[in-house]
Amino acid sequence: MHIIPPSVTALIDEFAKLPGVGPRSAERLTFFLLRHDTGLEQRLGDALQKLRTDLKMCHMCHNYSDAETCVICRNQHRNHHLITVVEEPLDVVAVEKTGLYEGVYHVLGGVISPIDGIGPAQLEIASLFDRVKNGKVQEVVLATNPTTEGEATALYIRKHLADSPAKITRLARGLPVGGDLEYADQITLGRALQERQVF
Amino acid sequence: MHIIPPSVTALIDEFAKLPGVGPRSAERLTFFLLRHDTGLEQRLGDALQKLRTDLKMCHMCHNYSDAETCVICRNQHRNHHLITVVEEPLDVVAVEKTGLYEGVYHVLGGVISPIDGIGPAQLEIASLFDRVKNGKVQEVVLATNPTTEGEATALYIRKHLADSPAKITRLARGLPVGGDLEYADQITLGRALQERQVF
Repeated sequence: MHIIPPSVTALIDEFAKLPGVGPRSAERLTFFLLRHDTGLEQRLGDALQKLRTDLKMCHMCHNYSDAETCVICRNQHRNHHLITVVEEPLDVVAVEKTGLYEGVYHVLGGVISPIDGIGPAQLEIASLFDRVKNGKVQEVVLATNPTTEGEATALYIRKHLADSPAKITRLARGLPVGGDLEYADQITLGRALQERQVF
Repeated sequence: MHIIPPSVTALIDEFAKLPGVGPRSAERLTFFLLRHDTGLEQRLGDALQKLRTDLKMCHMCHNYSDAETCVICRNQHRNHHLITVVEEPLDVVAVEKTGLYEGVYHVLGGVISPIDGIGPAQLEIASLFDRVKNGKVQEVVLATNPTTEGEATALYIRKHLADSPAKITRLARGLPVGGDLEYADQITLGRALQERQVF
């Protein structure tokens, strides 16, 4: 549509490349920024361009970090004998938000997915095995997603750590808190039934 | 949350200021950009910072433009005797998308809303009256939104153009195309009944 000035069209096009932002939302976001002259487009633009500045990967857990070793890995008040293995950095944020975890993390950077050409070598799996073998790790919590690939990755790790003295656990499966039995999917409900606990 | 590096937190915070983007979506967008190293954050940042560069307001219709006079107002193939009055620039895009309009526009820049301190003087209403009085305008289509403020603004304009030779019309009200009678709200259905047309 030639009726929109090029600088406006350019922003609509870039916004529309974000996940969950369709062409209509991209238009609305752009015209919101035009209408409200608060400088938000400058600050957002600045934050975007600086996103990777000084951004490092923690050499221990492979989470995003502002230093060689991330805030969690260099915190001596955390339990370094307890490692939770997650797929992505965002999963660390999710676990931290529970406020119930005192250990450290290991970010795989994805899951084993042969169809996408991703094997153990493409992930931070060897470095996990090194951490478990070299350190005094007592427990490894497998917290990959409950998907086919997440399960396969967890199984692969469990198999390769079978000889390790560390205990291998994984997150409980069952009904989500606040969920309704009636709306639970069959597999989740079946799992909750099989793994029922003494009350 | 100190566990996220500052450059990442900064972007999450700025994203969350966009309308319809909550803290969770802001996190997801940011981690999407981190995970997919396609340079999108640079291009989006660039587009944001250049948004207002060379952006002007058309001196005729007050739509956003890349020149003194916008693409529509300088197009001699359009009917300059037919002016559609809209609230916002995005409304021009909506009308253009119908592909059924050959006239020009006048963007008010909002609606009369005494509670927000917005009267006719804060809008491009005087300039509309000038266009209608000076020019050879044959028809003014009032296309403000069907809200209380939009209606009040349309009434105000109609009243002040009562002596003008131009015909004053407004967009038809009725059932939305593809809509279902059962789900139409009472006011819309009532309007559609009152303004029923010979078939």
